[in-house]
Amino acid sequence: MENTVVLKFGGTSVGTIEKIKKISNYLKQRVYKGEKLVVVVSAMGKTTDNLIKQVEEITNNPDIRELDTLLAIGEQNTISLMAITLNEIGIKSRSLTGMQAGIKTFGKHTKSKIANIDSDFIKDELKKFDVLVVAGFQGFNENKEITTLGRGGSDTSAVAIAAAIESPCEIYTDVHGVYSTDPRVYPEAIKLDEISYEEMLELSALGAGVLESRCIEIAKNYNIPIYLAKTLSGKKGTWIMSKENLLEKKVVTGVALDKDVLHVTIICKDFSSDFIEELFNQLDYYSVNIDMISQVVFDDKVNVSFTCKNSDRNFLNSILEIIDSKYKDIQYDIKSNFSKLSIVGSGMRDVSGVAARAFRTLCSNNIKFYQVTTSEISISYAIDLSDSEKAVQLFCKEFEL
Amino acid sequence: MENTVVLKFGGTSVGTIEKIKKISNYLKQRVYKGEKLVVVVSAMGKTTDNLIKQVEEITNNPDIRELDTLLAIGEQNTISLMAITLNEIGIKSRSLTGMQAGIKTFGKHTKSKIANIDSDFIKDELKKFDVLVVAGFQGFNENKEITTLGRGGSDTSAVAIAAAIESPCEIYTDVHGVYSTDPRVYPEAIKLDEISYEEMLELSALGAGVLESRCIEIAKNYNIPIYLAKTLSGKKGTWIMSKENLLEKKVVTGVALDKDVLHVTIICKDFSSDFIEELFNQLDYYSVNIDMISQVVFDDKVNVSFTCKNSDRNFLNSILEIIDSKYKDIQYDIKSNFSKLSIVGSGMRDVSGVAARAFRTLCSNNIKFYQVTTSEISISYAIDLSDSEKAVQLFCKEFEL
Repeated sequence: MENTVVLKFGGTSVGTIEKIKKISNYLKQRVYKGEKLVVVVSAMGKTTDNLIKQVEEITNNPDIRELDTLLAIGEQNTISLMAITLNEIGIKSRSLTGMQAGIKTFGKHTKSKIANIDSDFIKDELKKFDVLVVAGFQGFNENKEITTLGRGGSDTSAVAIAAAIESPCEIYTDVHGVYSTDPRVYPEAIKLDEISYEEMLELSALGAGVLESRCIEIAKNYNIPIYLAKTLSGKKGTWIMSKENLLEKKVVTGVALDKDVLHVTIICKDFSSDFIEELFNQLDYYSVNIDMISQVVFDDKVNVSFTCKNSDRNFLNSILEIIDSKYKDIQYDIKSNFSKLSIVGSGMRDVSGVAARAFRTLCSNNIKFYQVTTSEISISYAIDLSDSEKAVQLFCKEFEL
Repeated sequence: MENTVVLKFGGTSVGTIEKIKKISNYLKQRVYKGEKLVVVVSAMGKTTDNLIKQVEEITNNPDIRELDTLLAIGEQNTISLMAITLNEIGIKSRSLTGMQAGIKTFGKHTKSKIANIDSDFIKDELKKFDVLVVAGFQGFNENKEITTLGRGGSDTSAVAIAAAIESPCEIYTDVHGVYSTDPRVYPEAIKLDEISYEEMLELSALGAGVLESRCIEIAKNYNIPIYLAKTLSGKKGTWIMSKENLLEKKVVTGVALDKDVLHVTIICKDFSSDFIEELFNQLDYYSVNIDMISQVVFDDKVNVSFTCKNSDRNFLNSILEIIDSKYKDIQYDIKSNFSKLSIVGSGMRDVSGVAARAFRTLCSNNIKFYQVTTSEISISYAIDLSDSEKAVQLFCKEFEL
C-alpha cells in the first residue's frame, strides 16, 4: 500500500508508559508527514516474565493452550495503552489483537506459525484510522483459540503484516543495526548500511542474528525490505533487502560466532548404512538439533561428525547408549568447549580465493579447526572455544569488516 | 442442561494463585459428583485497579473502546490461570474469553449489555470438557470489538450464560447471602433462605442489593434460580427464585436503607405543565437519576418533590438556575442529610395493614418522614439521615426480620 509503513517496537522500547508516550509522539510526526502506520508492539518490559511467574506457582508443565491465552495478555496491554495515548494526542488510532487483525496461525501452541493475515480488513481499517496498533507475537487458530508465535514472534508478525499489505517494515530494537560481527567481541565491528536476505539468513541461523530466520524468510519470499534500527535514536540503521537491490556487494559481509557448541564424532568400524539411519532416527526422536554434519568413509570405517547445543548433552548420552548396545565396534567422542566460527558474504559465490584467505589466516596464526562446512555464501569452522575471539578479530582484519 | 451448573466467583475469591487453587479443588469435587460446570470469574483482586492506574498516567478521559480492550485483560488473566490449575489437577478444562464464549453485546463501551450468547457452542464444549472457565464482565460487539458490561458485569455474564444453557446459577461472593437488612446497621439481621426475584429487585434497586438489578431481571425473565453464598464457606446461602416456588411467603422480607439521598422540592406558584416538562427534560439532559417522584397540585400551585444522589448536586444547581430564569415565582429547596428507608415483601400485596404498622412504628417513635412512595411490594420513606439507623432497627423488630 502506498504511504503505508509497518513499524515494530520491542518490549524494552515500550517498557513504560513514558516510553509509550515518546513513541506515540514520534508516530504523530510520521502521520503528519502523510503516512499511514501499522505499529506492531510486544509486551511491556517484564510483563511476560511476571505472567510466567504466576504459572510457575501452579505448575512447571502448564497446558500450552492455556499458556497462550495467558501470554497474549501482555501485548493486549500494550496495544490498548498505546491506542489510548495516540487518541489522546489527536491521532486517530485503533488497537487490534492478533485475532482482531485476522492473524491466522497453524501448528503447536506456544510456537505457532502464521498461515495468513486478513489483509483486506487491515487495508479497510487504514482508510478509517491513521495508526493501527497490532499485538505482535499472537494470533488464532482454526478453533478460534489464541495462539502465540514463540521466539521472535513479534518481528515475524510485523514482517508478515508488511508482506500481506505490501509495505516496507521498520523494526526498532535496542541495537543500532546489523554489524559485521558481534561488537562485544570485536569493538571495531562496523554497522552495515545494507545486507541481503541470504547473508542475513546465514548470520541469523549462525547465532549472530538480531532477527529470527523465519522472519527474514518471509521478507525474502515477499521481497519486503526490512529496516532495522535503534528505537528513537535518530541514527541510521541497516536495510535488509534482496541482493539485486544492494548498492555494493561485499565479498564477506560478516563474521558470526556461536559459543554454544558440542562437537560429536562417532566412528563405526563395521560400515553399515543401518547405523547411520538409526543414529539420525534417534537424534530426531529426541529433537536434538544438529548442525555441521559431515560423514567420511575410509577402510570400511564410517566417521560421522556433527555439532549440537550443550543443553542436548543428556539426550546425546541416551542416544549413544542405545547405539552402543546395537552396534559393535563403536567409538565416540563428545567435546565441549567448542565454538563455531563462520564467515558470510553473498560475494563469495563470484570471487574465488575467499576460502584460501580464510584457511591461511587460521593456519598462520596456529588456530586449529576440527571441522569445516560450507554453503554457497558461507564457510564455518569448528574451533576451540579458547581461540574463538582471537579468530573473529583476525577474520575482521583480513576481510576489512 | 441436565447436571450442568453455572458458578461465578468474584475478584476477591480469585485474588491470589492460592485462592484459585482452592477453588479449583472445590470444582474438582463437584466434577467428581458428576456435574458439568461453567465457571465465570472476575479479574484477580486489584488487577483492574492497576490497569486503571496505567491509564491515569496517560489521560483522565481515555477512548472507551480502547479502555474496554485494556480492562478485558483482567479476566483473561484469571481464566487462563484457573484452566491451567484445573488441567494440572486432572480436570479437563478450557478457558473462554467473552468473545470466544460468544457473548455478543450492544450499546456503549464500558457499559454494554448482553444481546445473546452462543449457547450451542457452550453446550458443545461441555461435551468435551468438564469445566469451562469463562471471562465475566466482557463480550464483543457487532464490529468484533471487545466490550465490557460495567458494574456487576460478571454476575450478569453468569446469569446470562445460565439462562442461555438453561442451568441454575450459583454466585459466590464475600457475603453469606441476602439479609433482611444490612447487618452493619442491625446486627441481628437474619440471612434469608429464599427470596423472590421481585423482592430482590426492590432490595437491589433500593441500594441494599448484593446483586445488580439487571442481573436479577435476566434470572426472572428466564426463570433461572440463583444461589448466593459465601465462597468456600460451606454455609447455606440464599436462593433467589420465582415467587411461585418460595416455600414461605413472608409479609415483609427485608428493610433497605439508602444513605446517599438528596431531597429536592420545587414549588411553582403559577401552575403550568410546561414547567414540569422543562424540569424533566433538563434532568434527563444532565443524566440525573431521580427517584421517589411525587407531584401535588393545590391552589393552582404545583409542588414537585424527588430524590437523587448527592453527587448530582452540581447538575441540580445548573438545572434550577435554568428553570428559575424561565419561570417566575419558583421556590426550591434542596436538602442533604436524608436517607431512603424501604420495606420490601411480596406478601404485602395480600396482607393489609402493613402500611399501617409501618406508619405507626415511625410516628410512635417520633421519626419524621418527609415523603412516602409505594410500589406493589414496597413502601419507601424519605427520613432524616440521623433517624435512619434507629428506624431500620424499629422496622426489623416490628416485622420480625
